Amino acid sequence: MEFDLVITNGTVATASDTFRADIGIRDGRIAAIADNLHGAREIDASGKLVLPGGIEAHCHIAQESATGGMTADDYRSGSISAAFGGNSSFIPFAAQHRGMGVTETLDLYDSRAQGNSVIDYGYHLIVADPTEEALHKELPQAFARGVTSFKVFMTYDLMKIDDGQFLDILSVAKTHGALTMVHAENSGIIRWISDRLVAAGHTRPRYHAISHPAVAETEAINRAITLARFVDAPLLIVHVSTPEGAGMVARARLEGAKIFGETCPQYLFLTKDDLDRPGMEGAKFMCSPPVRDAKTQEALWRHLQAGTFSVFSSDHAPYRFDDSGKLAKGPDATFKQIANGMPGLALRLPLLFSEGVRAGRITLNQFVALGATNAAKLYGMHPEKGTIAIGSDADIAIWDPEETRTVTVEDQHDNMDYTPFEGRQITGWPVTVLSRGETVMDGGKLVAQPGRGKFIARRPPDFT
Amino acid sequence: MEFDLVITNGTVATASDTFRADIGIRDGRIAAIADNLHGAREIDASGKLVLPGGIEAHCHIAQESATGGMTADDYRSGSISAAFGGNSSFIPFAAQHRGMGVTETLDLYDSRAQGNSVIDYGYHLIVADPTEEALHKELPQAFARGVTSFKVFMTYDLMKIDDGQFLDILSVAKTHGALTMVHAENSGIIRWISDRLVAAGHTRPRYHAISHPAVAETEAINRAITLARFVDAPLLIVHVSTPEGAGMVARARLEGAKIFGETCPQYLFLTKDDLDRPGMEGAKFMCSPPVRDAKTQEALWRHLQAGTFSVFSSDHAPYRFDDSGKLAKGPDATFKQIANGMPGLALRLPLLFSEGVRAGRITLNQFVALGATNAAKLYGMHPEKGTIAIGSDADIAIWDPEETRTVTVEDQHDNMDYTPFEGRQITGWPVTVLSRGETVMDGGKLVAQPGRGKFIARRPPDFT
Amino acid sequence: MEFDLVITNGTVATASDTFRADIGIRDGRIAAIADNLHGAREIDASGKLVLPGGIEAHCHIAQESATGGMTADDYRSGSISAAFGGNSSFIPFAAQHRGMGVTETLDLYDSRAQGNSVIDYGYHLIVADPTEEALHKELPQAFARGVTSFKVFMTYDLMKIDDGQFLDILSVAKTHGALTMVHAENSGIIRWISDRLVAAGHTRPRYHAISHPAVAETEAINRAITLARFVDAPLLIVHVSTPEGAGMVARARLEGAKIFGETCPQYLFLTKDDLDRPGMEGAKFMCSPPVRDAKTQEALWRHLQAGTFSVFSSDHAPYRFDDSGKLAKGPDATFKQIANGMPGLALRLPLLFSEGVRAGRITLNQFVALGATNAAKLYGMHPEKGTIAIGSDADIAIWDPEETRTVTVEDQHDNMDYTPFEGRQITGWPVTVLSRGETVMDGGKLVAQPGRGKFIARRPPDFT
Amino acid sequence: MEFDLVITNGTVATASDTFRADIGIRDGRIAAIADNLHGAREIDASGKLVLPGGIEAHCHIAQESATGGMTADDYRSGSISAAFGGNSSFIPFAAQHRGMGVTETLDLYDSRAQGNSVIDYGYHLIVADPTEEALHKELPQAFARGVTSFKVFMTYDLMKIDDGQFLDILSVAKTHGALTMVHAENSGIIRWISDRLVAAGHTRPRYHAISHPAVAETEAINRAITLARFVDAPLLIVHVSTPEGAGMVARARLEGAKIFGETCPQYLFLTKDDLDRPGMEGAKFMCSPPVRDAKTQEALWRHLQAGTFSVFSSDHAPYRFDDSGKLAKGPDATFKQIANGMPGLALRLPLLFSEGVRAGRITLNQFVALGATNAAKLYGMHPEKGTIAIGSDADIAIWDPEETRTVTVEDQHDNMDYTPFEGRQITGWPVTVLSRGETVMDGGKLVAQPGRGKFIARRPPDFT
Ligand SMILES: [Zn+2]
Ligand SMILES: [Zn+2]
Ligand SMILES: [Zn+2]
Ligand SMILES: [Zn+2]
Ligand SMILES: [Zn+2]
Ligand SMILES: [Zn+2]
Ligand SMILES: [Zn+2]
Ligand SMILES: [Zn+2]
Repeated sequence: MEFDLVITNGTVATASDTFRADIGIRDGRIAAIADNLHGAREIDASGKLVLPGGIEAHCHIAQESATGGMTADDYRSGSISAAFGGNSSFIPFAAQHRGMGVTETLDLYDSRAQGNSVIDYGYHLIVADPTEEALHKELPQAFARGVTSFKVFMTYDLMKIDDGQFLDILSVAKTHGALTMVHAENSGIIRWISDRLVAAGHTRPRYHAISHPAVAETEAINRAITLARFVDAPLLIVHVSTPEGAGMVARARLEGAKIFGETCPQYLFLTKDDLDRPGMEGAKFMCSPPVRDAKTQEALWRHLQAGTFSVFSSDHAPYRFDDSGKLAKGPDATFKQIANGMPGLALRLPLLFSEGVRAGRITLNQFVALGATNAAKLYGMHPEKGTIAIGSDADIAIWDPEETRTVTVEDQHDNMDYTPFEGRQITGWPVTVLSRGETVMDGGKLVAQPGRGKFIARRPPDFT
Repeated sequence: MEFDLVITNGTVATASDTFRADIGIRDGRIAAIADNLHGAREIDASGKLVLPGGIEAHCHIAQESATGGMTADDYRSGSISAAFGGNSSFIPFAAQHRGMGVTETLDLYDSRAQGNSVIDYGYHLIVADPTEEALHKELPQAFARGVTSFKVFMTYDLMKIDDGQFLDILSVAKTHGALTMVHAENSGIIRWISDRLVAAGHTRPRYHAISHPAVAETEAINRAITLARFVDAPLLIVHVSTPEGAGMVARARLEGAKIFGETCPQYLFLTKDDLDRPGMEGAKFMCSPPVRDAKTQEALWRHLQAGTFSVFSSDHAPYRFDDSGKLAKGPDATFKQIANGMPGLALRLPLLFSEGVRAGRITLNQFVALGATNAAKLYGMHPEKGTIAIGSDADIAIWDPEETRTVTVEDQHDNMDYTPFEGRQITGWPVTVLSRGETVMDGGKLVAQPGRGKFIARRPPDFT
Repeated sequence: MEFDLVITNGTVATASDTFRADIGIRDGRIAAIADNLHGAREIDASGKLVLPGGIEAHCHIAQESATGGMTADDYRSGSISAAFGGNSSFIPFAAQHRGMGVTETLDLYDSRAQGNSVIDYGYHLIVADPTEEALHKELPQAFARGVTSFKVFMTYDLMKIDDGQFLDILSVAKTHGALTMVHAENSGIIRWISDRLVAAGHTRPRYHAISHPAVAETEAINRAITLARFVDAPLLIVHVSTPEGAGMVARARLEGAKIFGETCPQYLFLTKDDLDRPGMEGAKFMCSPPVRDAKTQEALWRHLQAGTFSVFSSDHAPYRFDDSGKLAKGPDATFKQIANGMPGLALRLPLLFSEGVRAGRITLNQFVALGATNAAKLYGMHPEKGTIAIGSDADIAIWDPEETRTVTVEDQHDNMDYTPFEGRQITGWPVTVLSRGETVMDGGKLVAQPGRGKFIARRPPDFT
Repeated sequence: MEFDLVITNGTVATASDTFRADIGIRDGRIAAIADNLHGAREIDASGKLVLPGGIEAHCHIAQESATGGMTADDYRSGSISAAFGGNSSFIPFAAQHRGMGVTETLDLYDSRAQGNSVIDYGYHLIVADPTEEALHKELPQAFARGVTSFKVFMTYDLMKIDDGQFLDILSVAKTHGALTMVHAENSGIIRWISDRLVAAGHTRPRYHAISHPAVAETEAINRAITLARFVDAPLLIVHVSTPEGAGMVARARLEGAKIFGETCPQYLFLTKDDLDRPGMEGAKFMCSPPVRDAKTQEALWRHLQAGTFSVFSSDHAPYRFDDSGKLAKGPDATFKQIANGMPGLALRLPLLFSEGVRAGRITLNQFVALGATNAAKLYGMHPEKGTIAIGSDADIAIWDPEETRTVTVEDQHDNMDYTPFEGRQITGWPVTVLSRGETVMDGGKLVAQPGRGKFIARRPPDFT
């Protein structure tokens, strides 16, 4: 057996097992997992963990908002930051806006990604204008092209669809075997309370959390699950921020429905107290749904342990803390005028490792599942991506479980000027990331060319 | 790399992955998983599945009941039947009866197992007499000896413990890191209704189901979970037969409690109509809790899919359909006089494969998890047992997923004169079973010596 | 003591008590309840029940639909039919349509009611166009005028409000102490499935039930309750047709919310099989939400017993079975083209008495509460209306609990040409109805002049 | 019309209505309710409330505990205290102890009550020894004698019955139409934790609450309801102290089961902080189940409002704070050695009026229902007792809703040397109590002879 590369002496972990083994790589794929391998090149992983490369499944890259703002990260900076965070592939959104065609949208994002990404990538298609043409001609084409997940919004005036349109999309997705994803918040509640808060002069970032109450999410999740079950279509609720919402996902699955959930680091590690920091600092912590409180964090950890959430994502939505982003409407902007979202591509996995695995809340195998394997299965990329198995792409992250570092914005390697996790101590970091057997990041240095990343034409999700 | 044995060309599956690979075995352990291996001996697994050997975690072997009856199977016949069913290890019960010491009990079962088993084995200790001595001296000794799971009964007059004793055992188990298991049925309800049924002349086997109503189980499961959560101790509910009971297990885990559940083939494949077969035929289908109905089966499948059940076991309790067993009290015995339990060691996995994997209800990976990996983790035998990974024991079952066979009692290879699944068509059968790299069963023939199986000194369960 | 009228020898029942007593009436009010009274005029009620006159709290009288159709009953025929059904007051709707002002609406209905009604009446205001003017100027004026309940629709294209408008109305109602009522069905689900059914040629009345599935109601009830609780405003869900919906009402109240529920005879006495009668007969049984099935009926009875429903109403919506009504779009009309609603003013109480009280499902006191007292309290008319107490209006219905009659359309005394309950045998009928001490109906004859009924300026509801 | 007594100018309230009226009484019964009555004797109730006399349905009078201690109050002092608290009848327990017959028990209590009580009385029979004789011969006799409610204990070593015996009693009670009542706490949990607390030296009164955790009650309530529903028998859970327990009662009733609940003032007005008062003071606040916390109080109020609880009782269990009672085992007694229970006969209604009606939590009509009417119905005494209606006993309490008084032990008129409510300010007090038209208490003075109270032979409960 000849290998191009062997990773020796590491502790390998998959979603179910942990064991000492060497990994032999040939032609960009994993060719052997054994107790004593040698190859043309060897990486000594003594004392290290050898894990499937992470899959970041929810991030906003080179994406305009409906009102025209552009994210700070493009496919170059975004993919680099992802790689520094232990990821070997990612799936940003390709956002249709009203008046745009679906194919037009995907072509646009192809042009943004090609030549730029250092890791492999796909897109989730955001559907904001479900015309007859889009539904019955373009969505099937998108699916055939390898874009097998469609996202909709229940809130945001320029993006939201109504319940009938939601059923249309669920129905088309189901027919083709695609997965529908949903941002579930009740638009009416948010607008109603926001109007009153702003009218009353309650405009500081802290009111963002008040204007997006937990019931806005739980109502919408209940409605979304009802609609999906009505047409017996699979559905993933993205960025679940409430225990009640998580409970609905879990119960639906116990009842046999194909309902899935995602949560994000912000809901485990930040609280609304962060929104109340002095001056405009709170703006850095604004995202939708908003961060909640300590009790919610605890409950969401329990749901992570119990398997309620299939996917754990950053929801990286990079708006700089300057007039290109958060402060575009000036220093006196109301919470309604400040872009929603926060960065987190490079910290998703380290945060989960440090506070999850090392703190004893989840196992290393659950970490692998949440960080890579589940997303690969649910988004139609398994077994090429998301695991360490014979024949799979050699997408591997080598982690030093003992390294302790303090978070700084510089180490994010994105285009942002802040990180909401600045100053936090984290133990356990990716030290080397391989993509199809090629080293992308090593020892804190980028060693890959932008543009080497390839588009992943995804298959239908595996809903089991 | 030199291997004693290589399994070539098979499709390997673990609890998380499925892939084509060869398996290299050295010194009884898995040394390589790779795309092209050779060894001193080779088994061609083309077109076959290469799976972790099954672990049967609930069976009654060489066990006297409290009233003196002995099971038809001993460690020789039992282990052989298990091997024919695709298992490479099993964990029968060592049953303390009142007046017996714990150490005395374990010594007795050691004497029964040694020299007889063809596969590796452990015991769950049944605790029926939790004296101070037993609780504080002997249970810790049992634990140190590698018996790290203790089972209690909430019903059966000569076995049952009261709620205070249950708390005592849960508390001791928790202190030592052991797992408590419970047969959960309400004794008072069963006795009350049984007395009335018998007094009214309703004595046929069909009344067994009526005398063990669903609420007897759900009440007891609620109480058992309450007690376990009160002292924050892990608990496994064995042989859950009701959707409500399964729901309680699932909810408790969502709330962060370490509550686990097991179900069995009889609850998925038989119904109370079987108890109503002519003459005494129904006696063959009597077990406690009893088999239910079609709607229950459906709900239990959903819970299997959703992950509510960690363990899937046969609850093999072999009483022959003659005067040594079911008919010991004659042909006119009341349902109260007929031994409870049915055989199933050799069919647990084929039934689950055929109706689960092939019928599209569960994935192959879920099958591996339910058949082997989860039990290995929960009973402290992982990663030596229950998976295919470097360094693990070469406990492997090779399955032909296409073979179709009709169930006959002869093919069970146990000491029984009937199987409740007689005549059923099953597709997918184990064709070769290895234990520590040695072939135990191959092509329908036993090729191992009784006594080669070793006692597995188990570690504390992994409750994550 | 001098009385204008004494009802002697009857069995009197209130919402809490049943006892033998005479009732003395003076100046239109109840002046004495005692064991031996005499007056200028006496009615012998031996063997009869003397009950508070019924209050019909949900009926559509002289009301145009949003598309222009007019109900078959006006205030004359409607009030007469109500009186024959044991009612001494009723509260039809005053329906604002888009572009109409609230005051304009109320004036219009005043003109329709005055000079016509034989019993006292009020209106619930339907709010379909919640402009700023309507919300902040006209609704308070309506409230001051004695219209203290506002109804909204979550479905019907020309009537429905969105979630933000719903919050606006709940908020205004709460400020003034008014009650909001809601027709809760999910508009998107209904439209989506209706479009597909009609496109597929499934146009017969039976598809009406399929196009209004239970989940359309339960989703909307969940949303409505969420919105009401968000602003801590009282809310009544009208015509609840599902056990799940009723369960949500009950649970909300257990949690301290001021959420109330109403159900109607059609959901207790008819099923979707009625919609499947030959030809266009099914059209007679179309209402929204639709009639369900036998299991639902049973569950709704249980909720009636347990107190989930405060109000029991006819939802009398009279569209004749001719081209003025149900058949306006011809004999081949699709289910979407057929007016929704059915008559029932004169049968609400007899049906509830016969199948509720006589069949042993509810007590006589619950019958009084559901038929009169609860509505009086919840709609701000108590204690003048809805009970037999000193000082209350002498609004009294004398019932013969033994009289058995077969339902015919002629006996309805409305303007309809059918009744959905034709041919049903009912035991227990009102034989005399008094309003403010004046006899309105006696022995099957109308003995009052149209126009004698007065507008009831209602007070704020009593939400306890 | 001639009356022996007329109560003039008061505001009368029943469980459903409130109105101004005079009450005419003849031959001990209510003969007229009217707007202008006169009689031989008149009581001016201007500015006062005229309510049905209270019915105290849970109190321990002249009762030995299983270990021999006797309550401080006998039928003389107990009935007097009850009268001062606005009650005109009460139902203490007749407690069978093991080895005693049922008839013997009832005869004994007859001898204790006769000649002593100033108000009418009945007994609930405590069944602690359900022999065949007791079940099938004596319980029917007790029932025939007018004792139509049977109470059982799930805890207390000398009183508790097992689940099978519970089913026996439920079954017999159901056959005869009697109501079973249960003290629901899990015996095993309480003993297990108590033993550990005492062994660890945690013996102060505060540990009483810890040794009776909420789960001990909720487990037992779940079990009790399960058993009752299994045999479809009515059941009342006495002194519910947990929101979860109350929730189970409410849900069972929504599902059509005849399950009822009672709560008591201590759970609304005291907390476990009271158990932690200095020295042995905490002993004064010990009862089982124990008082809980502020959040529980709030939830129980919500259940009172929503109708979960049919009965509100004092659970008056009078043990003096001296060596005849609480301190019988000396000043260093452990919490296990201190008698459980506290007095409250004279304060049940004033506390509920002041904090319920005046504080706006419940209506005056709910107060009447909880204080008198519901108990009369559920315990088979309606309509003679528990309401103001023609023909009912003239059992009437006249209340001054404005009188404010501070609670002192002297004003309790019982044999106790403390009240747990000492020093509390209460607004709203009974000023006159009539029993069958005779004045028992008036203006703070007893005006009736001990022995005038009669035994009430109760009918079967009304379970609707
Ligand atoms: Zn989003
Ligand atoms: Zn996002
Ligand atoms: Zn068992
Ligand atoms: Zn077993
Ligand atoms: Zn409606
Ligand atoms: Zn209507
Ligand atoms: Zn008690
Ligand atoms: Zn008591």
